[in-house]
Order: sequence, then C-alpha cells, then structure tokens
Amino acid sequence: MDGDGGKRWRFANPNPAVAAAGERSIQRYLVQLHACLDEHGPRPIIPLSHGDPSSSACFRTTPEAEEAVAAAVRSGEYWATPPPPPASPLAVAEYLSGDLPYELCTDDIFLTSGCTQAIEIVMSVFGQPGANILLPKPGYPKHEAHAVFHRMEVRFYDLVPERGWEVDVESIEALADDNTVAIVITNPNNPCGNVYTYEHLSKIADTASKLGVLVIADEVYGHLVYGSNPFVPMGLFGETAPVLTLGAISKRWIVPGWRFGWIAICDPKGILKETKVVDSLRSFRNLTTDPATFIQGAIPHIMKNTNDEFFSKTVELLKETAEICYGEIMEIKCITCPHKPEGSFFMMVKLDVSQLLDICDDVDFCSKLVKEESVVLLPGRALGMENWLRITFALDPPRLKLGLERVKSFCQRHQSPSS
Amino acid sequence: MDGDGGKRWRFANPNPAVAAAGERSIQRYLVQLHACLDEHGPRPIIPLSHGDPSSSACFRTTPEAEEAVAAAVRSGEYWATPPPPPASPLAVAEYLSGDLPYELCTDDIFLTSGCTQAIEIVMSVFGQPGANILLPKPGYPKHEAHAVFHRMEVRFYDLVPERGWEVDVESIEALADDNTVAIVITNPNNPCGNVYTYEHLSKIADTASKLGVLVIADEVYGHLVYGSNPFVPMGLFGETAPVLTLGAISKRWIVPGWRFGWIAICDPKGILKETKVVDSLRSFRNLTTDPATFIQGAIPHIMKNTNDEFFSKTVELLKETAEICYGEIMEIKCITCPHKPEGSFFMMVKLDVSQLLDICDDVDFCSKLVKEESVVLLPGRALGMENWLRITFALDPPRLKLGLERVKSFCQRHQSPSS
Repeated sequence: MDGDGGKRWRFANPNPAVAAAGERSIQRYLVQLHACLDEHGPRPIIPLSHGDPSSSACFRTTPEAEEAVAAAVRSGEYWATPPPPPASPLAVAEYLSGDLPYELCTDDIFLTSGCTQAIEIVMSVFGQPGANILLPKPGYPKHEAHAVFHRMEVRFYDLVPERGWEVDVESIEALADDNTVAIVITNPNNPCGNVYTYEHLSKIADTASKLGVLVIADEVYGHLVYGSNPFVPMGLFGETAPVLTLGAISKRWIVPGWRFGWIAICDPKGILKETKVVDSLRSFRNLTTDPATFIQGAIPHIMKNTNDEFFSKTVELLKETAEICYGEIMEIKCITCPHKPEGSFFMMVKLDVSQLLDICDDVDFCSKLVKEESVVLLPGRALGMENWLRITFALDPPRLKLGLERVKSFCQRHQSPSS
Repeated sequence: MDGDGGKRWRFANPNPAVAAAGERSIQRYLVQLHACLDEHGPRPIIPLSHGDPSSSACFRTTPEAEEAVAAAVRSGEYWATPPPPPASPLAVAEYLSGDLPYELCTDDIFLTSGCTQAIEIVMSVFGQPGANILLPKPGYPKHEAHAVFHRMEVRFYDLVPERGWEVDVESIEALADDNTVAIVITNPNNPCGNVYTYEHLSKIADTASKLGVLVIADEVYGHLVYGSNPFVPMGLFGETAPVLTLGAISKRWIVPGWRFGWIAICDPKGILKETKVVDSLRSFRNLTTDPATFIQGAIPHIMKNTNDEFFSKTVELLKETAEICYGEIMEIKCITCPHKPEGSFFMMVKLDVSQLLDICDDVDFCSKLVKEESVVLLPGRALGMENWLRITFALDPPRLKLGLERVKSFCQRHQSPSS
C-alpha cells in the first residue's frame, strides 16, 4: 500500500489477525447502533444492550469496597509491587475454595485485569495454528475474538433453547478431534441467562475427560443466580477433567471498571502442572500487566468484609428485574423468550421478523429501534444467532419498564397487518 | 505427552511462543537470584536490580495524586465505563502536546494498563510471521518478549557505550530489509541512563523515513533527565516518520503499581491512519482491557494539579543518587561505567571478570553477590550484554551507599591477586 505521496511504508499491512478478531466484538455493533441514535431527540437513551448495572443507583456497590480501595491508595503501601505475603491471591483462593471440596492455594491463582485479561491470557497460552477450541453458540464474543487472534480454529457447539439452553453434549464428541484443546463453558450464562445443574456440568466434565480436553469455565457471573438451580462451580469436577476457572469482582460486586479478575487452576490431580500448562501460564503472566496494586491491596478487605446482605439484595433486585423483563417480553407478539432467565444479567429472545412490516433482520430491528425509541438492544448476530436479541435487565426497574414499553410500542407500530 | 496414568491430554503442548517469550524476562533472572538469597541472613536485602523507587520514602508520590484517586473511587462515578466527554485521553493529549509543535487530540491517544500493555498492544498490531523489528542492544526485555511472542524476527542494533550509548545509526540500514516494520527507541534510556540529543533523534527519524519504517518511542522515563541533554520527545520528528509514543505515569509520578499508560499517535501527516494502522490499534484496544476507570477519572486532576516542585524534587534526587552511584562505581577496580547517567533510573557498567578470582561471568557475579551481600544487581545477560551489569540508583541515598559499599567489599574479597 502506498501513502505519503507514493512512498512505500513497510508497516502498511498490520497483523490481519487483529482485524479478524475485531470482527468478533459487541463494541462494533454498539458503535454502529449509536451512530443511528437521534442525539437531538428529547428522550434519554435506555441501554438494554450491555450489562452495566452500575449506571443505576440501586445497583451501587458496597461502601466497604469503596472504602477498602480508598484506604489502600492512601496507605502508601501500594504504589508498586504489593509486599509479600501475597494477601490478594490468598483471598481469592479462600473465596473460591469455599465452594469446592478441595483447597486452592495461592499458586493456583493468577490475578488478572478483569475477566477480559483472564480470557486473553488463557487464549494466549493455548492458541496456536492447528489447535482448535469448542465455544458455545450463542456465546460471548471475546472468547472467539481472542481464540481467532491467536489463530486457533473455533468450533461452535449449540446451546439448545428448548432445553433451557443446555449444552448439546452429544454433538460435542463429533466436533472434537485430536487437535481440540479445550471447551469453554459460561455459567451462569451470558447471553442466555440460564444456570447449569450439577448433573449437566458433570456430564460436560465426563465428555471433556473422554476427549482429553481442558474445561475453561467462565464464571464471571458466579453466584448471580435467582432461579431454582444453585450456582455450581465447574471446579467441583476438577478431578474428572482439569478446569481453569475465570472470574472477577466486576459482576458480583458491580464494579466492572475496577479491573480485578483471576484465573484459578481447579485441578486437584495436578495434570496442568504435569503437562507444563501452569509453567506457560506463569511465563505469560510475568510478561503482561497485572491489576492495579491498590486494588490488589484492597481485595482481602473487600472479600472478607462484604456482607451477605449486599449480595442478597443484588440477587433479589435481579430476580425482580428478570421477572419484569420476562413479563413485558411475553406481551410482545413478535418476540418470544424460550427460557425465563435465572442467572446473569441477560436473556436471549427470538425475533419473528415475518410478523414485522419493514424489518428485515435483527440488526435492522435494533438500528430502527435505537433511532425511533432511543433504546439499545444487542442484535443476536453479534453473538452468533441471527434474528435473536440479547436484552439486559440489570438496571433500575423504572428505566427497564420504560425501555421495554418503548420496545413494545415499536413492535406494534411495525407489525405487519397480515400477522 | 501423557499424564493421569497414561491418559492422553490434548492440551499438553501449550503455545511454544509463550515459553520463547518467557525466556526474555528480567523476572526470570530475579527469581533465580532471589533463590540464592540467604533468607536467614542478618542483613535486609538491597534491591539495585529493578527500578522501583517507591520502596524509598523519599521518592513517595505527590499527595495530590493519591487524593485524586481516592476521590474518584468515592465519587461513585467510576465503577464502569467513564462518562463522556473522554476527559482522561484529553488530559494525556494536552500533557503530551505541551512538548510538541502540533496538537494531539483524544483520537490520537489509546489508554493502556501501564507501559507494559502499550508494548503488548503495539507488538500485537505489528507482530506477524515474516515481519521483523529493530530493537536496541542492550534493551528492555519486554520489547523483545512481546515481539517474539507474536512471531516477529528480532534484529538488534547496537547502542555504543563509547559514544554515550548513541544508536549505531549507520548499521541500521544494513539490518533492515523489506520486511522491517519498525524501530524501537528508548529515551531516556533504560538500561543505559543516557538521553538522546535533538540531532541524534533527528538522524534516527531520517533513517526510519528512508527505510519506510515506523518509530516506536518508549518514553516511559520521559522528563526524568538531569544531565546536559534536555528530554526531546521523538514525536517532534513525526513529520519525518510516523511515531507511536509509549508512556505512563509510572515513572515520573513514581506510581508503577497504578497501571496507567498510553500509546500516542504522533503522526501529523496521517500516514498511520491512511495505512490502517490506527484502525488496527482501535480494533485491538476494543478487545483488550483498559486501565481501572477510577484511575482514568483521576488522571485529569493528577496531570493538572501536580506541581513543578514535585517533579524537580524527584529529578534533583535522581541527580544526587546518580552521582553517588557513579562515584562509588569509579572506586571499584573490576567495574567501569562508560557513561555517567543523565536520565532514567539506571546505568550500565562493564564487569571485568579477569580481575576476579572465582567469578566466571555476570550471572555468577550477581548470584554470589546476592548470597554473600544481600545486594541484587541485574546481570547484563538479561538485557543482551554478557559481562555487563545494570544498576538502579533510584532509591534513598543511605541504602544506595550501603548497597554499593557491599558491592565494593564483595569485589575486593574476590579480587584476583594477579590483577
């Protein structure tokens, strides 16, 4: 490529894997949608597209967490490397061990700048040309983006809406081959809002073991459950197949911007150590950035001093907003929800465009919706499912209701007379 | 590879690029050296190996910076995405524009989790098999590590100790070919402690232009100069060849643990936009993590309210400790310093092992030194220079003197009778 008056610049073909990975991005769709927004419109935008409850006052994090960070900054102890003993990984190990039949130690925990960096590190360690990885469809696009960036082949297994978004376990064996290194499981599920049972996770672990693949469990929504299924960490089945659990404080503590997460090695048989995966994780961890040190300093206080009341209040609120969302969607003719959400901040709903007059697909639906109603929904295409929509209900009930009423009136206005 | 009683795990060969990159790590040497430490010895360890002045009370950051972060945490405005307008990139753009003949805008700034992530992002965007990059020798290992991780070929150009560690500009043309995408320049220099003149940087920009390569300017030690050469940002020559400037608040504000840095596009002719490099940077930026949002919230206050007195006090202190270090080293027979440091936290010194009785090389020297004297120096081999040593003087004068006295007595004790 030429630039600067015909002069040839040798850097003019940046890494094509970046562009390929960039295609798999929710952000890309949101930028497009925001471009459709009538900025001079009288109504404030209602974002039902991405899960950021912190924009609603009712979802404010606990004062203890804020205090712990402010105190760590002021202490003058956290400008640089936190002093030993490593209190922060220890606090995470203890937090996670509470739900496991075995104890994690500090060596089992790698701290990360939020769950995003946990995904990056895991994909960096396993990603190489020739390898393939099994991802859920629909799924969280960053799993795919980082796998693609590291030139892995991505193979999608289905989540089945009619079975409460369970994994189509039978199909997994057919998808995998000798070059399959891992299967990613998101639980509680984003975007579907379902929560897997003990029995179902056990079946997945058995399949992973049979295939000889690792389980990468994205549990960033861990404990945010409000249906009949309790949250079961995948690490419970670490004896069956090795598990790397990815998590963060971002969702349960409602502080996505604080950028504190982890990779936990849930592998009581030590297979990941034996196969040098742990060495590789440690090598990469040393090369890359870690969370801001005063967040590290605050973590033991945050994890120990957050009271159960805060957690149960959040879960109660999510249960309420999930009910509102499900109820309102039931009243919209062209949209159906196959499974009432019972975890995470999201639900997936199916759009029947044949009932609409002048809407050709999910992207078109979302573009016109944002233009006419200042409501943002995420087109399913961003998650691998055309003519579906992802809706978040993690915001305050009045705004949520208002947003959904606008979706309803939009659908009524565009309804085909024949439907 | 087999594990778990002969069962074949398919993930048992993690990405070999991680191990290759991990070889290029200061951390790896420090872990080895700390293993030599006599932990039950009576003397506290004196770390002259890595630049972390925040361990000395005299280098404490400014109270305004601490206050700004604590206030941002407490404000409740920075749990998630910072609200528009993007005050934080704007503050960085204004901070950098103060030293440039043109104005940077917010679109020219990509915020990063410290300078480490800036290096990661740049190498991710340009790194691909077949491409090569020119790096300084001696140099900062993370440049090499991330280049290697992305399967670039690394070609080293020499910094010449006899010419005040200037770049051997003449040799660069011979090193480059059609697949060379960039040259990395570190100024003020880590590990050498020199500061490049306007004329020298201009010559480098001319060479980059002639070769059609980008300049990646690592200026994380920007403004930390105390010799006769002022700090000249590479961006001054952005009209000659496009420059990506990497920086952070970590060094000048002495807060390495706060993880706030940037990539600045210093390219008034818009070549990086034209050649889609900016698109690629933006795509990758969207996929990866960014700095904790309350640091982003605090940055405008930190950049505007830090008084010159704080900056000049830091520089005065570094000038004093650099003098101490240079003076003490002059008195050690087997160690010579070719160039008195005038910037950054470091100096490179040459070790003459032929004058020592039972020391075979720099790694051996550092291992025995830490064991016998509880003083840590970094072996030059970690930076590409065997039988050299990197010393940091960025700590309080009493501990620095004590550490250097121990180095002196160690050298005297090991001196060969014939030398």
